[in-house]
Amino acid sequence: MTEFFSNVKPIQFEGKNTDNPLAFRYYDADKMILGKPMKDHLRFAAAYWHSLTWPGVDIFGQGTFERPWMQPGNAMELAHLKADVAFEFFSKLNVPYYCFHDVDVSPEGANVREYVNNLAQMVDILGNKQEQTGVKLLWGTANAFSNPRYMAGAASNPDPKVFAYAATQIFNAMKATKTLGGQNYVLWGGREGYETLLNTDLRQERQQLGRLMQMVVENKHKIGFKGTILIEPKPQEPTKHQYDYDVSAVYGFLKQFGLEDEIKVNIEANHATLAGHSFQHEVATAVSLGILGSIDANRGDPQLGWDTDQFPNSVEENSLVLYEILKAGGLTTGGFNFDARLRRPSIAPEDLFYGHIGGMDTMALALEKAAAMIENDQLAKNIAQRYAGWNEPLGKGILNGDYSLESLASYAVDNNIQPVKESGRQEYLENIVNRYIF
Amino acid sequence: MTEFFSNVKPIQFEGKNTDNPLAFRYYDADKMILGKPMKDHLRFAAAYWHSLTWPGVDIFGQGTFERPWMQPGNAMELAHLKADVAFEFFSKLNVPYYCFHDVDVSPEGANVREYVNNLAQMVDILGNKQEQTGVKLLWGTANAFSNPRYMAGAASNPDPKVFAYAATQIFNAMKATKTLGGQNYVLWGGREGYETLLNTDLRQERQQLGRLMQMVVENKHKIGFKGTILIEPKPQEPTKHQYDYDVSAVYGFLKQFGLEDEIKVNIEANHATLAGHSFQHEVATAVSLGILGSIDANRGDPQLGWDTDQFPNSVEENSLVLYEILKAGGLTTGGFNFDARLRRPSIAPEDLFYGHIGGMDTMALALEKAAAMIENDQLAKNIAQRYAGWNEPLGKGILNGDYSLESLASYAVDNNIQPVKESGRQEYLENIVNRYIF
Amino acid sequence: MTEFFSNVKPIQFEGKNTDNPLAFRYYDADKMILGKPMKDHLRFAAAYWHSLTWPGVDIFGQGTFERPWMQPGNAMELAHLKADVAFEFFSKLNVPYYCFHDVDVSPEGANVREYVNNLAQMVDILGNKQEQTGVKLLWGTANAFSNPRYMAGAASNPDPKVFAYAATQIFNAMKATKTLGGQNYVLWGGREGYETLLNTDLRQERQQLGRLMQMVVENKHKIGFKGTILIEPKPQEPTKHQYDYDVSAVYGFLKQFGLEDEIKVNIEANHATLAGHSFQHEVATAVSLGILGSIDANRGDPQLGWDTDQFPNSVEENSLVLYEILKAGGLTTGGFNFDARLRRPSIAPEDLFYGHIGGMDTMALALEKAAAMIENDQLAKNIAQRYAGWNEPLGKGILNGDYSLESLASYAVDNNIQPVKESGRQEYLENIVNRYIF
Amino acid sequence: MTEFFSNVKPIQFEGKNTDNPLAFRYYDADKMILGKPMKDHLRFAAAYWHSLTWPGVDIFGQGTFERPWMQPGNAMELAHLKADVAFEFFSKLNVPYYCFHDVDVSPEGANVREYVNNLAQMVDILGNKQEQTGVKLLWGTANAFSNPRYMAGAASNPDPKVFAYAATQIFNAMKATKTLGGQNYVLWGGREGYETLLNTDLRQERQQLGRLMQMVVENKHKIGFKGTILIEPKPQEPTKHQYDYDVSAVYGFLKQFGLEDEIKVNIEANHATLAGHSFQHEVATAVSLGILGSIDANRGDPQLGWDTDQFPNSVEENSLVLYEILKAGGLTTGGFNFDARLRRPSIAPEDLFYGHIGGMDTMALALEKAAAMIENDQLAKNIAQRYAGWNEPLGKGILNGDYSLESLASYAVDNNIQPVKESGRQEYLENIVNRYIF
Repeated sequence: MTEFFSNVKPIQFEGKNTDNPLAFRYYDADKMILGKPMKDHLRFAAAYWHSLTWPGVDIFGQGTFERPWMQPGNAMELAHLKADVAFEFFSKLNVPYYCFHDVDVSPEGANVREYVNNLAQMVDILGNKQEQTGVKLLWGTANAFSNPRYMAGAASNPDPKVFAYAATQIFNAMKATKTLGGQNYVLWGGREGYETLLNTDLRQERQQLGRLMQMVVENKHKIGFKGTILIEPKPQEPTKHQYDYDVSAVYGFLKQFGLEDEIKVNIEANHATLAGHSFQHEVATAVSLGILGSIDANRGDPQLGWDTDQFPNSVEENSLVLYEILKAGGLTTGGFNFDARLRRPSIAPEDLFYGHIGGMDTMALALEKAAAMIENDQLAKNIAQRYAGWNEPLGKGILNGDYSLESLASYAVDNNIQPVKESGRQEYLENIVNRYIF
Repeated sequence: MTEFFSNVKPIQFEGKNTDNPLAFRYYDADKMILGKPMKDHLRFAAAYWHSLTWPGVDIFGQGTFERPWMQPGNAMELAHLKADVAFEFFSKLNVPYYCFHDVDVSPEGANVREYVNNLAQMVDILGNKQEQTGVKLLWGTANAFSNPRYMAGAASNPDPKVFAYAATQIFNAMKATKTLGGQNYVLWGGREGYETLLNTDLRQERQQLGRLMQMVVENKHKIGFKGTILIEPKPQEPTKHQYDYDVSAVYGFLKQFGLEDEIKVNIEANHATLAGHSFQHEVATAVSLGILGSIDANRGDPQLGWDTDQFPNSVEENSLVLYEILKAGGLTTGGFNFDARLRRPSIAPEDLFYGHIGGMDTMALALEKAAAMIENDQLAKNIAQRYAGWNEPLGKGILNGDYSLESLASYAVDNNIQPVKESGRQEYLENIVNRYIF
Repeated sequence: MTEFFSNVKPIQFEGKNTDNPLAFRYYDADKMILGKPMKDHLRFAAAYWHSLTWPGVDIFGQGTFERPWMQPGNAMELAHLKADVAFEFFSKLNVPYYCFHDVDVSPEGANVREYVNNLAQMVDILGNKQEQTGVKLLWGTANAFSNPRYMAGAASNPDPKVFAYAATQIFNAMKATKTLGGQNYVLWGGREGYETLLNTDLRQERQQLGRLMQMVVENKHKIGFKGTILIEPKPQEPTKHQYDYDVSAVYGFLKQFGLEDEIKVNIEANHATLAGHSFQHEVATAVSLGILGSIDANRGDPQLGWDTDQFPNSVEENSLVLYEILKAGGLTTGGFNFDARLRRPSIAPEDLFYGHIGGMDTMALALEKAAAMIENDQLAKNIAQRYAGWNEPLGKGILNGDYSLESLASYAVDNNIQPVKESGRQEYLENIVNRYIF
Repeated sequence: MTEFFSNVKPIQFEGKNTDNPLAFRYYDADKMILGKPMKDHLRFAAAYWHSLTWPGVDIFGQGTFERPWMQPGNAMELAHLKADVAFEFFSKLNVPYYCFHDVDVSPEGANVREYVNNLAQMVDILGNKQEQTGVKLLWGTANAFSNPRYMAGAASNPDPKVFAYAATQIFNAMKATKTLGGQNYVLWGGREGYETLLNTDLRQERQQLGRLMQMVVENKHKIGFKGTILIEPKPQEPTKHQYDYDVSAVYGFLKQFGLEDEIKVNIEANHATLAGHSFQHEVATAVSLGILGSIDANRGDPQLGWDTDQFPNSVEENSLVLYEILKAGGLTTGGFNFDARLRRPSIAPEDLFYGHIGGMDTMALALEKAAAMIENDQLAKNIAQRYAGWNEPLGKGILNGDYSLESLASYAVDNNIQPVKESGRQEYLENIVNRYIF
């Protein structure tokens, strides 16, 4: 087995002042931050699909990457070759985890049986690779959106046979994930939505999707999978509307089907912004609802209306995201998966390293900034002071249910209350944040 | 009492071919549509605020309307004058309902006591006006967002005194609504959201808001109000983020606080589009979740990112909305309220009539198109056929819980299933819709 | 040669009340509208790429269409087969024109020489097809964006060899267009823009692009091509930013390079809306600048931030577009090209007809509505009256340059002018428009 | 005269580690950067309107600021008081420049004569203030958009009397600007656009606007004003469409009226993003067209579709903007004007300082980062290398016009060219940028 990235040595931490573009400036895996090594806070993962499977196509152009394993040939042999390169890449990058879809690692085959057999074979190979390299599986998932059979949805398809096909993939992908020691299993319903309301029964499709989620949870317990089940919200693309639109939509869904204690969310930065929210908003909302699970670290382009899946490079944005996560106690089974891909003209093999190094350094530095913010938490103190009235008798009484609307109105009129306005101090607080970042 | 709209006679239905711009071409109140008079399907309401209270300001310019009741003077006398003009307008327009915020009809006063007294006086006057004219109240609401005291929210304010002030307004506005025979009571949380996450406790504010909603429902039952409580979703503006973002977000909120059988949604077209959804989507989603209550009929501008509140003028868009509503059995206590305002340069008093006539004709014609679509419901037939597999053993079994993920996967592999793709026929269905509209 | 669309007979006009989904309800080619047959107003064209070449992929999914000519095989034989089906389709659709990119009709080959030879062969075949069927060429163009060599632009590429390659395609595509009697030649700079400013020299790339445009114009005159050169604006996608962003950007570009009398614009509805404009706006702007050339008729999805290229189905929107075009005297060499594609799940061959029939009927009906608006042009009369002051001494004097800023200020102060506000009457005018549409 | 900001002492540079929120951490006015004091690079200005005139209203709420000069009273006395506070503010902030609209500083009066007289009086007062404090005028402008007379435009109004009124304001505002030593004069056509195409004559309005621009330039030369005339692009708001949509649109306009050497652009960050561009894009585009004049420093909210005019706080974004400006040789007569306002709940007088201090520190730090990027300009070197082919014979020949389309095509075929793809290296370059920022 020859190296694909023959010009790249394992990426090391060299510190802020290094000139080496193939070194980490901030990601120092064992550096202690708030009592825990950086790597255990961040639990980085690389994504098999963007890094190994995506050929550099876009909707107006053919693939630019032309990797050896994308050439014509025997599907299983090419999958082996791809796995070799994948683990060479993960190892050299020093990323502790990876993530995959079933069909990233294993050929779909001509039919469902071949699919099952192929995947089983590839799981053996991946298991060996994991053992050899020490790279672990953050999460697995099933791709139930690319094959033409899913053009009208997977669980929400009008044809129950398609539901059954998707269930087969999910069952086997969960099994593979368990076998490989995966710490989470993710559901992204790429086609669980509609192209047009004119041919769609919303209530019916919601029932179908709800039943699938329940089956996944039941299966988790049955097979003894100890990881977390995660749903990844996205508002649209490829569909016109996706049911798991944003964190709030997923929460309502989970409540409807009684799954709010069983399933958490995997939040992607670019999906958050496509849904009209900031990345921080989606994370903070999930925390406030108790359903934060894991993160797909990337970024969108604020001027573009589709999923650009760029590598994160904003320390400013991610410091606030990490602040929310640290404040919530950190991730448990989750991690930061780089659901990010090279720009289509970034065709050099080294570009894969530049993208990930930039992303890892960005998140590592953001972690340091967030940790500093937490240590002397001026934002939290300001919030505590701002809401202090809710710990006093009136505030407590209201939240405890001591007041009816009528008795509270009487209180107000009897005391002729005149609330005093207080500055919200947004600019002051923004300056404080920049004080930690710069 | 002199007429304000002295050039306008009561608006009559004159039919499609009339040249009279001050006549209805399609809104024929008593015309029977699917066994019910048009007026009972549509239950149109005019909005006190946009038509009477808004002075024609925008964020870059002063008021252009300069109505007599907007001049300096005694607040209660001006409120009387405004009520005179309001009911002259409603009567001449032949609109069966109106809607108001407390402070549209009644001066806020210097303090909470004056507020309560002013509103009580104005309720008497409005009651008399209703009796004289036959105009009824579709819904009332309290404005807990314009006064500077609400700059950081009403129920979600960091100061419980502000919560108490809002509660006082809501208590009195509910009382006024009940007294005036209102058929619904609406909550639009214009400032129930945040400007910046840096000074916001999402979990705390959600609890506060949830408690308010519960108090409103408890008060409804206590005072014997028979109408429907409605929440109006909006994603943002004036705040950066509003908690009642869209129908899905409201649904999750209602489920969390156990209110999904007590509160429904009032869907506004322009709020739907600001949230990244089509108007039809929000209506269809509410129907599918069983929480459709009422409609704020207007439109946004697809190129502008704020609430333009224009009068509806698209028969194409509204035919599909009315199709969803008719399919769901129609509105019950709800109606179509024109939450719409004149463009700022439309300063002539007659413009108020042009705006509403255009809106009413648009919705009336859309109703006729939708009724035709329902009568021989080709869309519904297509949907029934498309999902037919879910009424067969496999589909039924899946939804009934007869299959686990594993047994379904076994079924798929044992039968080596090969789902057959079927065209989604979107273009064909779009042509069918246009067949009804044109 | 066997038929591909064996279930479809030539599409005929059957009138509004037909139940036949494979008939025109409004497009009656020879019906006289304002003294000219409908077909000569509309000059419809079908697009080779979307209808014949695009396999039904999207960024998350494989092709769903699986047409015979998309299977593995000899490239030139498949191109022949595709041409057979294309002209069967155009003929049965009764569309008078078609449009193509060089590589839609002809295989790229392994190198530039093969490209030239292949195209020359296919031009012969297409010429024969045109003669047999009477279908004509509205415009040709070169695809200088799909091949990986164009990943960083064609004319604006950092490598002049890529410029030369693109020039070769354009030269040959112009030649093919002339040979086939094409009435226009289109330039869409799909990759003429940037992915990131960090690696881009804007001034340099603008010079390169300007030089290409000049070369195209010079070549047109040299080869005696009598058609019109058209630039198609688009703001972004596939690039982050495209230089021909919108009509205004193209106009500035043409002025800079002295080409404003040589090149016109081909306006696409979906590109207009992606650029933040209404379709009507872009058409009206081009008319006001004297550069309207042709139309790519389609629509976007108002909730989606990418080019969905759906078939036009809004009579409301297109009536206003056609009103602008009729008011400007109509298209000359231009036409309405359906740059529209089926939704990915619309896999049945008949769906291609449903899409185009819907589009053609929509535009035909819009033409009828627009013609009615023009015949007794109330909008134009209102505008003439609104701006009447500019035909009086003060207005004329200002535009003639009789006033300096100072003398005009003196005039204003000396006469203590007090302009009188007049209603803009937007709602009244919107009602008038609906009066013509419904 | 008593101080308004009695709790605030003049803001001093105290360095990065200060805990004083009322001190600069990075803005060290006299620090030399690339051979020039920081203050001469940045030429900061505070905006009279946002800081002194805007009362804290939004479209859903009343003013929250309740400053003494916003209370009822004699208009000229209140204007004096406002000027006192303004210069107290500018002085304590240590900002070298300010900017104003005529009606920010001076009451409009009951008619055009009073307007002229009031402004003349206030110019005397402002002149004295400037002398006392050393604060200078960066630019003046006329507000021809807030008064109801401008509801349908100023220069583009259908009524030439309104044009004359605007011309009077502009003439007097230019005179005031010259008298006060202003270094630029700005035109922002807030209402120069349309609400609806239905009542608009685009060609006519463009002529009117073009004539006004010419009159302004002629007047500049006549009165001997040595400053720069600037147009400020904005796409929309308050109008549906503004003619000066973005830098490209302004450039086309200037070319049409022969003004491209007379007028430059004042680019606002938030207007750039509303137009669908990045701030850096608009600056880089203006540089590439030779029309960069000045900057309105602020930021929008990426999730909101209106002009939020927040204070800049992103060092990441502004480092790239300053890099473009430094690379272009810096601003000459222009500067960085904080066209930014407090959030409506930021009601404390000190908040005005927090906002500006944050903005000034952000831009100062961004300047330092940009200067570091320029000193060893790796980005420029990469670009030079990337486009190197254009300095070789083929590239030079193409740009020099040595090739026709035909001869270039012959060259390509004869040499059977095969361009070699090179990585665009976007991720690598993004990492380099972050290397300078962090």
